[in-house]
Amino acid sequence: MHAHVILAAGQGTRMKSRLPKVLHPLLGKPMLHYALEAALALKPERLVVVVGHGGEVVAEALKGYPVEVAWQQEQLGTAHALLQAESLLRGFPGPFLVTQGDTPLLTPETLRALLERVEAGAGMALLTVELPDPTGYGRILREGEEVLANVEEKDASPEVKAIREVNAGAYAFDGFLFQALREVRNENAAREYYLPDLIAIYRVHGKRVEAVRGVAEEALGVNTREELARVEGVLLKRLRRAWMQKGVRMVLPETIYLEPSVELAPDVVLWPGVVLKGKTRVGEGCEVGPYAVLEDTVLEPGAKVQAHTVAQGAHLHGGASAGPFARLRPGAVLREEVHVGNFVEVKNSLLHPGVKAGHLAYLGDAEVGAGTNIGAGVITANYDGKRKHKTQIGEKAFIGSNSVLVAPVKVGNRALVGAGSVITQEVPDGALAVARGRQRNLEGYALRKLGEE
Amino acid sequence: MHAHVILAAGQGTRMKSRLPKVLHPLLGKPMLHYALEAALALKPERLVVVVGHGGEVVAEALKGYPVEVAWQQEQLGTAHALLQAESLLRGFPGPFLVTQGDTPLLTPETLRALLERVEAGAGMALLTVELPDPTGYGRILREGEEVLANVEEKDASPEVKAIREVNAGAYAFDGFLFQALREVRNENAAREYYLPDLIAIYRVHGKRVEAVRGVAEEALGVNTREELARVEGVLLKRLRRAWMQKGVRMVLPETIYLEPSVELAPDVVLWPGVVLKGKTRVGEGCEVGPYAVLEDTVLEPGAKVQAHTVAQGAHLHGGASAGPFARLRPGAVLREEVHVGNFVEVKNSLLHPGVKAGHLAYLGDAEVGAGTNIGAGVITANYDGKRKHKTQIGEKAFIGSNSVLVAPVKVGNRALVGAGSVITQEVPDGALAVARGRQRNLEGYALRKLGEE
Amino acid sequence: MHAHVILAAGQGTRMKSRLPKVLHPLLGKPMLHYALEAALALKPERLVVVVGHGGEVVAEALKGYPVEVAWQQEQLGTAHALLQAESLLRGFPGPFLVTQGDTPLLTPETLRALLERVEAGAGMALLTVELPDPTGYGRILREGEEVLANVEEKDASPEVKAIREVNAGAYAFDGFLFQALREVRNENAAREYYLPDLIAIYRVHGKRVEAVRGVAEEALGVNTREELARVEGVLLKRLRRAWMQKGVRMVLPETIYLEPSVELAPDVVLWPGVVLKGKTRVGEGCEVGPYAVLEDTVLEPGAKVQAHTVAQGAHLHGGASAGPFARLRPGAVLREEVHVGNFVEVKNSLLHPGVKAGHLAYLGDAEVGAGTNIGAGVITANYDGKRKHKTQIGEKAFIGSNSVLVAPVKVGNRALVGAGSVITQEVPDGALAVARGRQRNLEGYALRKLGEE
Repeated sequence: MHAHVILAAGQGTRMKSRLPKVLHPLLGKPMLHYALEAALALKPERLVVVVGHGGEVVAEALKGYPVEVAWQQEQLGTAHALLQAESLLRGFPGPFLVTQGDTPLLTPETLRALLERVEAGAGMALLTVELPDPTGYGRILREGEEVLANVEEKDASPEVKAIREVNAGAYAFDGFLFQALREVRNENAAREYYLPDLIAIYRVHGKRVEAVRGVAEEALGVNTREELARVEGVLLKRLRRAWMQKGVRMVLPETIYLEPSVELAPDVVLWPGVVLKGKTRVGEGCEVGPYAVLEDTVLEPGAKVQAHTVAQGAHLHGGASAGPFARLRPGAVLREEVHVGNFVEVKNSLLHPGVKAGHLAYLGDAEVGAGTNIGAGVITANYDGKRKHKTQIGEKAFIGSNSVLVAPVKVGNRALVGAGSVITQEVPDGALAVARGRQRNLEGYALRKLGEE
Repeated sequence: MHAHVILAAGQGTRMKSRLPKVLHPLLGKPMLHYALEAALALKPERLVVVVGHGGEVVAEALKGYPVEVAWQQEQLGTAHALLQAESLLRGFPGPFLVTQGDTPLLTPETLRALLERVEAGAGMALLTVELPDPTGYGRILREGEEVLANVEEKDASPEVKAIREVNAGAYAFDGFLFQALREVRNENAAREYYLPDLIAIYRVHGKRVEAVRGVAEEALGVNTREELARVEGVLLKRLRRAWMQKGVRMVLPETIYLEPSVELAPDVVLWPGVVLKGKTRVGEGCEVGPYAVLEDTVLEPGAKVQAHTVAQGAHLHGGASAGPFARLRPGAVLREEVHVGNFVEVKNSLLHPGVKAGHLAYLGDAEVGAGTNIGAGVITANYDGKRKHKTQIGEKAFIGSNSVLVAPVKVGNRALVGAGSVITQEVPDGALAVARGRQRNLEGYALRKLGEE
Repeated sequence: MHAHVILAAGQGTRMKSRLPKVLHPLLGKPMLHYALEAALALKPERLVVVVGHGGEVVAEALKGYPVEVAWQQEQLGTAHALLQAESLLRGFPGPFLVTQGDTPLLTPETLRALLERVEAGAGMALLTVELPDPTGYGRILREGEEVLANVEEKDASPEVKAIREVNAGAYAFDGFLFQALREVRNENAAREYYLPDLIAIYRVHGKRVEAVRGVAEEALGVNTREELARVEGVLLKRLRRAWMQKGVRMVLPETIYLEPSVELAPDVVLWPGVVLKGKTRVGEGCEVGPYAVLEDTVLEPGAKVQAHTVAQGAHLHGGASAGPFARLRPGAVLREEVHVGNFVEVKNSLLHPGVKAGHLAYLGDAEVGAGTNIGAGVITANYDGKRKHKTQIGEKAFIGSNSVLVAPVKVGNRALVGAGSVITQEVPDGALAVARGRQRNLEGYALRKLGEE
């Protein structure tokens, strides 16, 4: 039983953004959500987020999470920020975990290690990491597991400066926390109240402070766009590796982008530059061609997406294929063995098994029966300037090239629409519909018109 | 004169795949083919591949290669696998090269070095590499070139553990090989027969065992998808470097994918993300735009492919250009100065010099005469639901926008097809053909229909 | 007050190119321009470029820059090349800066440091860098800031070989330069006159030679395509970092290509694989989707370009959006809230606020009034085989799917064009225009034709 406080009040000026820092997205979701999910993995009794800069927007982004929000009205330092959680947590006996909203790589395992130290008797535990170049950071002085002090750069002797272990900003505290916080002073250049001062305060009160050594990568904080990109790179590497271990083949993996919400299966092949977002799910043996961009799209086992296909909210069944250059929009359902080819857009349409729409077509708000062939350039005119209407095409029909089906309209089973026709009335089953002008040849006219000979 | 045995019987469970490990593709061809080609480069008298797991499929992939296949029915270890080649090689005096089907980066030069050791009198030679972290591997104990032992991790003293030289799994043996193999025992935890045991057996028989130190990269084995990607990365780096040294310019080379079968020329420019597959050949001075994907496609010197073009089996002559967003399919031939533009698909069609098809067209099974202009949205309706038919267009013709040529059909030289026409009959040379309705304007109707004012 | 000489006469045989080495492009402009711009940043009184191999073409590339050209007719070494500038600079008192045309990463700051040494009394100053592996390079022997000698590899003792500081090929000289140059001898294997010989000559004349230690990266020279790619990589990294520091978000930054002429704003989001060229300018809060390629294109704040869009010379106003798969060509102007969708090409056309052209259309030489809807497959037939003509469409009009507007033609405000119509005459305001055949259904025909039942 513990409480967890996430500090998310910082302004993040170095991001140079209108968006509060903790809301900057990492692989499709706000940085802050990573901190929340790590916290929730340990099932805290209470979870408080301290917001400040851009607090309304940050609070908005917390909706759906079981959190309480504390407000830091003035930005007077991290210790001051944490103190804002006191009124919410009054009476809670501890222990407390405290983490930052801008260190999205921290794992639940590391948090658990901190917590266990306090549960085992330490008053305070802090996460430390070793940096290749610790210049500018406070150094951690230890004796075994015990932390003696956090020495600021300016106060450090050459021996202390040689220490490469620094404070990573994640803590566990016992129930003494808020009492200790009130002892923090702001007698420094910035007139701020700093969390690391708790080390000395805890020790003065005879309480043991311990350090948990973590991996440097985990403690990466995000203060700039470059750090954001670096952290995103780390998350991507983790994701790619995890999926490769489960049997996914990636060609040029460093060029592949995918979000944590995506699900892949063994023997999936991802070609260079593939972008997978949202609730995309790719089934066993599916191939996704180079530069395909899929969002919230389902590929059932054995479906295939070719190069340069963009899909959102589409569903491809086994044996269905799309692309290259296919555009699938929400509600596009491609049943078994459907093929949607180049420069074809499908929106909110159900294509029954075996439908072929190979070239330059637009199918919107349509249902197309099994085995039907949609010619090149065919368009369902679903919009009359005011409303969208539905097009119904039967099975084994044949819609000639460049014809327009003006919705609402129905074409029957095994019906045939002549090329270049504009269909405004129902075509019965088995009928041939033609709606176009008769061909007239004017001999010699072209020569005259082109002004030659 | 020597024989070569490739061990390709392993299951490769860590690949998490239905495909046998050695068949996983690397730059478009099975991993195993790399081992075969390295072996064949030394012109062995006999080449035996030992197959086991997925043996039928593996044997199938060997077709066309001058190899004999030995079967390992039970997977009882590498020494047991090699022993399966005995009946095929009975009476062959040696020397023997033995390599693995899953180390595709081994070069013929390294194999030759191993072979030369045995030819010069060693009984056995093995390839070793130095690893930054050899934990888990058996360590090679040497005295100069001579190998004293391969010490397993569990039996290693701290001094031996400090050795970073390990066995890389490629060997040469003299004619004593199969006799020695029969002395290998399986008295170990896995009850398997291991090849490295031959070191001790050879030495017991008074035969000298030597080590050839190789580059670590060359010995990279593939047991996981990650290792597959890493090896593919190494192959790509080698290929890119080789082509750059021959005068190819690559922009963001790390994003470019190309297969070993591709041929490039000096002053070719490849933009970011280009994918070149199969028998693609790009001539001097050609430019391939970003994210173009070319397979089995020929660009004669001076041809150009713009961004986001996908071509398979196409042939562009000098001065021809395609893209952006062009789709060229098998049999698309673009003669000199032809331009195929955005959202245009060409399949099995010959476009004579100077043809322009700039926008949103489909040309299938067509021949288009020199200097002809294909308007936007033009479609050759080559499919009647049962068969494909041919469209013939003459020279210097002009096919108006959105017209359909219903094949089989012929349009003459300098003929003109009016926009929006559906052409079903021959258009003579110099004629103007129109097949469309007459325009009627219904004044005020639109206002009423749109329900405004 | 100083003069600057850039040596740009080398052949660059290892580039394997028809293009003179210094003209090879780096991020869209010739390598030589980087050397010119670094030189010009220090405002030299005189700027001379020594050309030789491919001199005419190189001289051509210098147009627009305030430079004088000296010719090296024979390639007799770097000292000989520099001597060719003498007649142009006769009487100029010095100091002189001398740099190479193939070291594009040298910064003005470094050049200034060299110059200051000579201004402070040194006779000669040279840039040095420390290499991890200096094998093959002459080593710099110093005493403090003073250079004693440049020792060639072949003359170096083991102690000298251990030195890793080498000559980077950028120099400052006092007025003694040309006199010293005439003392250089070509008594070496290649019979060439070498610039580093000036070190000894200056010292013989009692003049002090100093070294300025630079960053190794800055001194990277380009002799091969690989080095070109490496230098381009360094420039890209610098650019990306600079823009991220200004508030640009980049997803997979290593896959993003952008040229130095591009301007970005805070809260711009660039997705993987974006290519930005020329005078492209992207305003605050704009998003550029994966694999979009923009050249000389302006996105006003709040505009959006979706995946796989290719734009050249286009202008998108706030709230306008294009893509995925949009093609914008020069003169495409998308005013506020315009949307141009998939497989739509816009060329030299003004789309007033709120126009929607969502699918498979071609708009060329057109002006489209505010709020008008362009149906799928609509084409402005702007070319009659000889000339281009203009299409005028009014406000709140509705152009039905697959219709063709044969330019020159005018469609009025709130006019409505029926699907599949070919419009050749003006459509008045508020009128409905239809130009197509009437639909006829031939019952049962299709069944017979398809040969079934």
